[in-house]
Amino acid sequence: MNEVVTSLTAAARQLEAPDSAVLKLAPEDCLEFEAGARLGGLSIAYQTYGELNAAKSNAILVCHALTGDQHVANVHPVTGKPGWWQILVGPGKPVDTDRFFVICANVLGGCMGSTGPASINPETGEPWGLDFPLVTIRDMVSAQARLVDHLGIDTLFAVIGGSMGGMQVLQWAASYPERVFAAVPIATAARHSSQNIAFHEVGRQAVMADPEWCGGRYLTKGCRPTKGLAVARMAAHITYLSDPALHRKFGRNLQDREQFTFGFDADFQIESYLRHQGMSFVDRFDANSYLYLTRAMDYFDLAAEADGKLANVFMGTKSRFCVVSFTSDWLFPTEENRKIVHALNASGARVSFVEVESDKGHDAFLLNEPVMFDAISGFLDGAWRVRSGA
Amino acid sequence: MNEVVTSLTAAARQLEAPDSAVLKLAPEDCLEFEAGARLGGLSIAYQTYGELNAAKSNAILVCHALTGDQHVANVHPVTGKPGWWQILVGPGKPVDTDRFFVICANVLGGCMGSTGPASINPETGEPWGLDFPLVTIRDMVSAQARLVDHLGIDTLFAVIGGSMGGMQVLQWAASYPERVFAAVPIATAARHSSQNIAFHEVGRQAVMADPEWCGGRYLTKGCRPTKGLAVARMAAHITYLSDPALHRKFGRNLQDREQFTFGFDADFQIESYLRHQGMSFVDRFDANSYLYLTRAMDYFDLAAEADGKLANVFMGTKSRFCVVSFTSDWLFPTEENRKIVHALNASGARVSFVEVESDKGHDAFLLNEPVMFDAISGFLDGAWRVRSGA
Repeated sequence: MNEVVTSLTAAARQLEAPDSAVLKLAPEDCLEFEAGARLGGLSIAYQTYGELNAAKSNAILVCHALTGDQHVANVHPVTGKPGWWQILVGPGKPVDTDRFFVICANVLGGCMGSTGPASINPETGEPWGLDFPLVTIRDMVSAQARLVDHLGIDTLFAVIGGSMGGMQVLQWAASYPERVFAAVPIATAARHSSQNIAFHEVGRQAVMADPEWCGGRYLTKGCRPTKGLAVARMAAHITYLSDPALHRKFGRNLQDREQFTFGFDADFQIESYLRHQGMSFVDRFDANSYLYLTRAMDYFDLAAEADGKLANVFMGTKSRFCVVSFTSDWLFPTEENRKIVHALNASGARVSFVEVESDKGHDAFLLNEPVMFDAISGFLDGAWRVRSGA
Repeated sequence: MNEVVTSLTAAARQLEAPDSAVLKLAPEDCLEFEAGARLGGLSIAYQTYGELNAAKSNAILVCHALTGDQHVANVHPVTGKPGWWQILVGPGKPVDTDRFFVICANVLGGCMGSTGPASINPETGEPWGLDFPLVTIRDMVSAQARLVDHLGIDTLFAVIGGSMGGMQVLQWAASYPERVFAAVPIATAARHSSQNIAFHEVGRQAVMADPEWCGGRYLTKGCRPTKGLAVARMAAHITYLSDPALHRKFGRNLQDREQFTFGFDADFQIESYLRHQGMSFVDRFDANSYLYLTRAMDYFDLAAEADGKLANVFMGTKSRFCVVSFTSDWLFPTEENRKIVHALNASGARVSFVEVESDKGHDAFLLNEPVMFDAISGFLDGAWRVRSGA
């Protein structure tokens, strides 16, 4: 019980005083949300790794996924676990911090120090809740651009990310083509599919069905929709894994018992695992943030910015692209990634495409996948040779 | 509002006085549950279509799926909709009621008139709730066998069903090989996979997270976990459809609007559709029944009865089999159905196998699939020629 209380306190502290650098925009420096709102004074919490060179040409922006955050390659301040991409980012790693200056910002709408629905609305002195304007992928990228400006970086050497992070990569390449030298969208899509939206909607309904959600005002009222958010996380988690991976990892194995209990306890290991995923998630994530970020993904449809023609979004781009997908990813299947590649080809962009053979499903992008590592380091090496004139 | 109240009343009435024939077993006629309980006086609600011939050789037992019931081919007494397999069962249909006597019973643990957790526990005078013993697929089949005995039928000409219905078909062939002349398991598996269990566990957690579930005693306490059950149904419903079918049917189309609301209303048609599926389900289904029946499917592992060797389950069977799967069914994929076929081959059984090309996902077995119809009617024709000596 103590452990939970401690981590709750730790999570709450990240909202007010995150264990990160924070860029606080001036009150008059307003961000125009796609939803129509204009907000000044936003906070953008971020981590950096490595050193920015004198020419400010070696910066790589990492974009995190739905439930990720800025703690890419350091011990997480709430969970105490390694950074979510520590396997890929660090000294001597494919994204080599001995060579590159790596930046990762908590997304707008998040809950690890960047402004979001759990932040205080200065006009009321209370948490925004659902009064916070809806955030889109484009808004997240606009906020990140403010941070890149603040760091004095004109052109990012690379922007890289998987899943919702990959959406941000694509949006960067679309919104700021001249500021992106190389782009690595991984296990993502240029638009959220009907099935993707459906799973997100189930998660949102699970949160909103929890009476402790209180119409989004749970922080003000001192309650927390932990059960609803845990169910949402459990449902989502299944979509991150593949059927073969679940079979290999859990099969029909029983949990700490020889036979069925003929009841509703977690008889199977997969049940116990999912319950754990649900319960540990609620300790580190804000329920309204979950609603906002899933909605941002649902709304994402890059081609809609160009009359439905994705190729037109990238027309004339000088950025280089490396698109990565995984064979067993059924949430963002290869087909969706290939559509990005086709559009880039049609737009005349330089693009390489790697479909990695893996049975680990969507989560493969976070795991030990040597073929992905080789693809990323090879691509970055080549691009860096061009960029640095070596 | 009136409509809901009416259908609630109609649903409640089905528990006490179903619009079906009901076999009421004698108090001393006990069914031995796999979970260890012995219960007498069980009710088995059922429908029949067509006429039993003098030789009692033309009976076909239809087994329903998780949320189905005995109303295969008549207007449903609660929803007012056509029977769930009216497309397949009826005069001149593939399961031709001009020729065959078709029986379908509400499963044990269900909520349309057969005894289940919403039934009254005679010892307390209150609904059983979670005190009802857990039901397995084998228990369902045992109860059905009592009904078949009662109807004076020695050998069923055929047993047919999809999904959980297909599990019952396999269990019939395993438990009563001499009473099954022909078996048609459709879109099913000989065991529930880890991913299948995972989705069910999410649904159960959604129900049990609803405070109105009241530890399963909601009927006694006069409340109903409608929100939790609706979320469970929404999550499950996604698994019944395929990604391409969702794309074709809904895509990213908006519901009754031109642009995003930038909020959490049902902007997309798929959201509106899912919400409707959730809300209409709770009007006709009991939440505890949902827990029991999903658990019955999770526990199903036919090979476990024979030291993990599925072929041994069917060894020496004289039944004929026709196994049907659908290319886009990712809940009970062709691979799982093929395992049944391989086991039947290894056991020396007569078996034909049809993988139907369809983009409709798991629900294809309920829909207009001419190749499935042809396979079933062709198989039944051939088997009937043998059975009737024609």
